[in-house]
Amino acid sequence: MPELRREPITGRWVVIATKRAKRPESFTQKQRKPVKLMANCPFCYGNEGMTPSEVLAFRPKGTKPNSSGWKVRVVPNKFPAFTMKSESEIKTPIVPTEFEDKQTGRQKELEIYSHRPALGVHEVIVSSPDHVKSLALLTEQEVELVIEAYCSRLLDIKKDSRIKQVLIIVNHGEEAGTSIEHPHSQLFGMPIIPPVVAEEISCADRYFRKTGQCVFCNILAEELKMAERIITESEYFLSFSPYASRQPFETWIVPKKHLANFELISLAEKKDFASILKSTLGKIYKGLDDPPYNFYLHTSPFQMDAKKFYHWHIEILPKLSIQAGFEMGSGIMINVVSPEEAAKFLRNF
Amino acid sequence: MPELRREPITGRWVVIATKRAKRPESFTQKQRKPVKLMANCPFCYGNEGMTPSEVLAFRPKGTKPNSSGWKVRVVPNKFPAFTMKSESEIKTPIVPTEFEDKQTGRQKELEIYSHRPALGVHEVIVSSPDHVKSLALLTEQEVELVIEAYCSRLLDIKKDSRIKQVLIIVNHGEEAGTSIEHPHSQLFGMPIIPPVVAEEISCADRYFRKTGQCVFCNILAEELKMAERIITESEYFLSFSPYASRQPFETWIVPKKHLANFELISLAEKKDFASILKSTLGKIYKGLDDPPYNFYLHTSPFQMDAKKFYHWHIEILPKLSIQAGFEMGSGIMINVVSPEEAAKFLRNF
Repeated sequence: MPELRREPITGRWVVIATKRAKRPESFTQKQRKPVKLMANCPFCYGNEGMTPSEVLAFRPKGTKPNSSGWKVRVVPNKFPAFTMKSESEIKTPIVPTEFEDKQTGRQKELEIYSHRPALGVHEVIVSSPDHVKSLALLTEQEVELVIEAYCSRLLDIKKDSRIKQVLIIVNHGEEAGTSIEHPHSQLFGMPIIPPVVAEEISCADRYFRKTGQCVFCNILAEELKMAERIITESEYFLSFSPYASRQPFETWIVPKKHLANFELISLAEKKDFASILKSTLGKIYKGLDDPPYNFYLHTSPFQMDAKKFYHWHIEILPKLSIQAGFEMGSGIMINVVSPEEAAKFLRNF
Repeated sequence: MPELRREPITGRWVVIATKRAKRPESFTQKQRKPVKLMANCPFCYGNEGMTPSEVLAFRPKGTKPNSSGWKVRVVPNKFPAFTMKSESEIKTPIVPTEFEDKQTGRQKELEIYSHRPALGVHEVIVSSPDHVKSLALLTEQEVELVIEAYCSRLLDIKKDSRIKQVLIIVNHGEEAGTSIEHPHSQLFGMPIIPPVVAEEISCADRYFRKTGQCVFCNILAEELKMAERIITESEYFLSFSPYASRQPFETWIVPKKHLANFELISLAEKKDFASILKSTLGKIYKGLDDPPYNFYLHTSPFQMDAKKFYHWHIEILPKLSIQAGFEMGSGIMINVVSPEEAAKFLRNF
């Protein structure tokens, strides 16, 4: 019968309902046509003028900013969701509700609708000059440069105390919401701690205060012992299908070591992370025929000391099912492929 | 510049970023081909044997159960996400973690992974014998029968104390996750209160304890006063674009009267609700050319007294954008159409 599984960090529930399932093979995708260089792609060589000026680029000495020759290039998003440029004021009025404070008996006001400018940064990290090769197909050295760019941007943005949290994401494939085909990541620096991260951290903190243990360490120990949900393992990382996977082939990569802040990763870990990220995405690429996917990197908010109970990590969600009315209205996901079956399938590739 | 808006009930944040926008007209859909009766559709007349036995049907006297002639038909889902039949045991072991309780100094155990059978009900409410007409196109009387079926099933399921919460949803269109084209709703009776409902209720409760006022009443008062986000209004209901709309053309229908439990709706309110539901979905149908959408009905959990601070209501979410890595990883939605613009557009139809 269907099974309700509780996600151990945040406590959210998932229904694993494999009777509704298809076989893993049925999730494979049609192959896309490869194209090498696109005349109208803002992320291809020669089109650097189509983007805002670069904020970072790894390029050979002697080449000029915003010219070709770079290996990884970081530019502000042309249509940012968060920006430091407050060129126009928000006109919506803030509307207070009056009420009598029960303790003091005084008349007070409470805003029913509140808003603030979406102050922050929104950048694009172009993975390589290649218009087609996603992270799964780049070399380990090329992936390492992307990781290096993530780190470098985080360390720089961290200096601005208005930015509370950075989220790095990848949307791969049109069905996963990407509008530009050329492989890239996006970085969002936000003036608030987003609810998904806040919940993860506060739950991990509560677990630590209750047990004196780190919930991420306990999950890793359990996964290593049971082994059935492991996809691949490296010196510093474990790649696995989480126990309460929300979607078919959901995959997490978690550092074995306590490290709350991604930007504090060591050189050796960076190399190892590039390698396991490439190989995990490679298994998804090969096993599921280059499916659309989203991934995001969760790291500790800058102004917080979470090192005892939190591990930065990435969560990869292949887009193979649709979030429909039930999932939206309940917050409970229905997953038709069990994580045990998903991991067993992906280990083959 | 982009605007961060706070949803007044749960406090979740939304980015309204209209520079990323398209015009409302650009969201219109290709028209689907109409088909009247399908030989292989389990919800069409003559195919009643293709579904499990009906649990409710509005049918003329003299017609037999599971035969043609019905107006609305309710059957168990063939591949249920929740079921009372526990035909097989869950084999995944529950794994306890040992830890020392800080207060007592004693050794304790905590389950890192927990699960339970997904006990409950999962039913399908077939709107009418017509294979094509969705709620927007049925007559008011036909929609009223659907509402009547919702109510009747809720009152029946409520008798089973194992069911804590019922969620009714509609997935309209393939992109919104429906697998059977023939218009229908789904009803989920669950052994837990799903997190989205739990959060809504606990936030409304907190607002009430703080201010002595109902947050839903205050929202309605505000919307009626400002008028710019109203889509349509009836005697007992308001249909509007919520202030912190998560997606383009998100629409809520909320009763003006305090009523936490949908199943306690009066006859007059039922008629009025059928009318405003049809006309609201009709505006979405006409204005956006029959887009895919999801809607869900939120009502108070059965074993809870929320009548002072909660209003049952429905939330309609046209599927016109993709939830990508940012939304999933942060829990913050980016909406490219402001609710003021959405309501203004829909009012025309």
